[in-house]
Amino acid sequence: MPDQPAHMTPEEFRRHGHAAIDWIADYWASLDDLPVRAQVAPGDVRRLLPASAPETGESFDAVLADLDRVVVPGLTHWQHPRFFAYFPANSSPAAILGDLLSSGIGAQGMIWATSPAVTEVEQAVLDWFAEALGLPDTFRSDGPGGGVIQDTASTATFTALLSALHRASGGDVRRHGVGDADWRVYGSTQAHSSLVKAAMMAGLGEDAVRTIAVDPATQAMDVAALRAAIADDVAAGLRPVMVHLAAGSTSTGAMDDIAAAAEVARGHDAWVHVDAAWAGVAAVCPEHRGHLAGVESADSFVTNPHKWLLTTFDCSTFWVRDRAALTGALSILPEYLRNAATESGEVVDYRDWHPQLGRRFRAIKLWAVLRTYGIDGLQAHIRSGIALAEHVAELVAADDRFEMVTEPSLSLVVFRLAAGDEQTMAAMEAVNASGEAYLSHTTVEGRTAIRLAVGSWRTTRADVDRTWRALQEAAAAQA
Amino acid sequence: MPDQPAHMTPEEFRRHGHAAIDWIADYWASLDDLPVRAQVAPGDVRRLLPASAPETGESFDAVLADLDRVVVPGLTHWQHPRFFAYFPANSSPAAILGDLLSSGIGAQGMIWATSPAVTEVEQAVLDWFAEALGLPDTFRSDGPGGGVIQDTASTATFTALLSALHRASGGDVRRHGVGDADWRVYGSTQAHSSLVKAAMMAGLGEDAVRTIAVDPATQAMDVAALRAAIADDVAAGLRPVMVHLAAGSTSTGAMDDIAAAAEVARGHDAWVHVDAAWAGVAAVCPEHRGHLAGVESADSFVTNPHKWLLTTFDCSTFWVRDRAALTGALSILPEYLRNAATESGEVVDYRDWHPQLGRRFRAIKLWAVLRTYGIDGLQAHIRSGIALAEHVAELVAADDRFEMVTEPSLSLVVFRLAAGDEQTMAAMEAVNASGEAYLSHTTVEGRTAIRLAVGSWRTTRADVDRTWRALQEAAAAQA
Ligand SMILES: Cc1ncc(COP(=O)(O)O)c(C=O)c1O
Ligand SMILES: Cc1ncc(COP(=O)(O)O)c(C=O)c1O
Repeated sequence: MPDQPAHMTPEEFRRHGHAAIDWIADYWASLDDLPVRAQVAPGDVRRLLPASAPETGESFDAVLADLDRVVVPGLTHWQHPRFFAYFPANSSPAAILGDLLSSGIGAQGMIWATSPAVTEVEQAVLDWFAEALGLPDTFRSDGPGGGVIQDTASTATFTALLSALHRASGGDVRRHGVGDADWRVYGSTQAHSSLVKAAMMAGLGEDAVRTIAVDPATQAMDVAALRAAIADDVAAGLRPVMVHLAAGSTSTGAMDDIAAAAEVARGHDAWVHVDAAWAGVAAVCPEHRGHLAGVESADSFVTNPHKWLLTTFDCSTFWVRDRAALTGALSILPEYLRNAATESGEVVDYRDWHPQLGRRFRAIKLWAVLRTYGIDGLQAHIRSGIALAEHVAELVAADDRFEMVTEPSLSLVVFRLAAGDEQTMAAMEAVNASGEAYLSHTTVEGRTAIRLAVGSWRTTRADVDRTWRALQEAAAAQA
Repeated sequence: MPDQPAHMTPEEFRRHGHAAIDWIADYWASLDDLPVRAQVAPGDVRRLLPASAPETGESFDAVLADLDRVVVPGLTHWQHPRFFAYFPANSSPAAILGDLLSSGIGAQGMIWATSPAVTEVEQAVLDWFAEALGLPDTFRSDGPGGGVIQDTASTATFTALLSALHRASGGDVRRHGVGDADWRVYGSTQAHSSLVKAAMMAGLGEDAVRTIAVDPATQAMDVAALRAAIADDVAAGLRPVMVHLAAGSTSTGAMDDIAAAAEVARGHDAWVHVDAAWAGVAAVCPEHRGHLAGVESADSFVTNPHKWLLTTFDCSTFWVRDRAALTGALSILPEYLRNAATESGEVVDYRDWHPQLGRRFRAIKLWAVLRTYGIDGLQAHIRSGIALAEHVAELVAADDRFEMVTEPSLSLVVFRLAAGDEQTMAAMEAVNASGEAYLSHTTVEGRTAIRLAVGSWRTTRADVDRTWRALQEAAAAQA
């Protein structure tokens, strides 16, 4: 027998493992002093790496050392207390350790039979989480619906579209393809780009997405326009298959009226998918559930604990009211996966709930978050983010050089320099380039705006104030 | 300001983090004494969990305690030294710690600008790995091609199909959908089910996959049959878009002749995708590259370090010779992601390389594996798995009650009881039910067979011998 290579011994694993934990704690402690945005140019990181993998193994200590030397300077620090760009990818200690345990267990939950706990803990945790968000019982796993952890909201939206096509075609799409049936998908001008990407991937093409106008003030879908568009399309012989509703748009946190739009959709048997990737988790607070009113008429719903809710990427929670459409669109049973449990119909095989076959035990990290924070801890986290955003809105109101672009939405504030688009962009760029804080931009009704999304568990009022001072200085420099 | 909830302090994180590492080391140490396959019935795990998430937070210690109480008994232990079912999902200490560091960093690499090191380390590591596997330079990131880490081979195959459709349609599919253009996709009867799933998801439907016969002895694609099928289809006005080749089929490890099949495909401008999900990594050994002969004419290639090559799930490495087809099929640039680096054309934005938008820093775990094992360590690992499989083949040959079904393929051995299908299945079930070892089954030319896939870094010759004794006893009980 040839020799196995030298694997880490248990003692070495403990030692390097403790060192990796300590590296993370030290990295976090250093964040406040690091520029938020990476200060590197294209190729700078790559240049620090050798051209090839080493012939013989190095110690894990060398990897840790290179994290400091090569990686950290090339990072934009998403866990930084003054990271306000995009939406947060908030990673809490509990989630990180939960995910670590999942790696150590290393189980593969493609079907129930390949590791029952992977599936059953996920079902339980998704039921817990649905209840915590006040979602309707139709999404629970003990009825015809159920929840699943997807990697991302993009995948969830794509999966929703495949389910919608399956239901609308009575299974024909799965067998014969989408053909030239002129399927139509609807979303507002503010719908996340993953909607168009889903239509492209599902074989419908960009043209199949009909973009519905929004109310200029709220940026929410104009439901009358949706009704008119669907009526037009139906009259023209097109087939409405899905309506995508944003419960918290990416650009400004706009909230589509789910109840009203769903009523229109249901009149044409179109699938209703609610994309609450960022804002959905706020519903752990009963007072922050208004944007989900009407969700009981949705066919599917997605929100990302991996954004605001402290759960290390990737963890996107997705529910359907009728899992038959989902598994109808995606199930395939090759011989080597046949087993008694599947045939009994008593279990759920999650590989039929998403595009991938293999799947890791992602439920542990969400389980760890729900348990170690508890519902009241998660509520406190959400409320503190929203309070900080309200504070930002007050700062904007108190300075004439700035103006709000839309009403604040939960923990997102969208504002601009009164001086104009160029000045707005230049001020944001100046702050980002300084490394003091990191913001992102958008355009709203044709005008440039700055987005400030609170949500990290490290962000304090002092961080917001410091960011605001940097913005004020940048604004002054533009004057 | 409302208070933040109690997050773990740095000291608590270190303490719980060290405890989580130690839990893993202890779990691993216990594996040998645990039944490989979970001994639970549907609902058993779920019943041990409360109906709702707790109102107030619990200590992380409670989560660890419940791993032992609730989770471990419900696991089939994929990291067990006598796990021989499916293919391994081999998770090494180095990969686990690499992935842990990625969680701690918590960076989101959707585009280069959102954290440059995420992209550049991934590019470097994929170039290293391509070189280590002896893949052609056309797959390197410094030409028109390049590599990317996908979550799974299923996603990679789906992405290959989208790229193929993009290229064949000159971009029409992206805009107008697949329509009723009668696209055809080819794979052998042994192609992984992810090929049909990809065709379903891409809007082509199951019918678009034309299944090509295999040589009964080798289970490899009959290239003459492929040629005839394509010629037929072209004559009938259908459009061949992709040929899927298995370099190591799931069932028996069959190797399609890439060079010969690619020549046929190229004659019709069809995309050639090589699915080497399991067997590709064996190419780290120059003497185990034969099955990839001809890969230089492939348009895309996937192999899974998360199977045999010690890299914690998920990590599927995917290369294309022309990234323009891939990004042409998948790119969308919303305003909030516009940035100078992207516009300069000097960088790669990986969210255009896969269905998802958000992406984690998965390259760290593969980097940690390549560096801490070194090329020679990885070679030793592969060689030891192959040697153990050869040992299994000798054991089969030495016992009249057993017979080989196909030639051993790398670390996979497929055999049966001479007594018949029912006896074969019953013997396997007996071993699996005993918990002593875990095997999976398949059918080959209509007959039931047992698959024994070696590959865990924990498996020794003693584990193989012990498994063999259990099989012999089970066979005796069938006699
Ligand atoms: C409303 C909305 N939907 C979907 C997404 C995509 O999220 P993911 O990266 O999980 O696909 C985002 C990301 O910001 C979003 O804001
Ligand atoms: C040949 C082959 N292709 C693809 C896959 C699917 O792998 P994944 O779970 O990474 O999608 C497998 C899984 O066993 C496989 O054997």
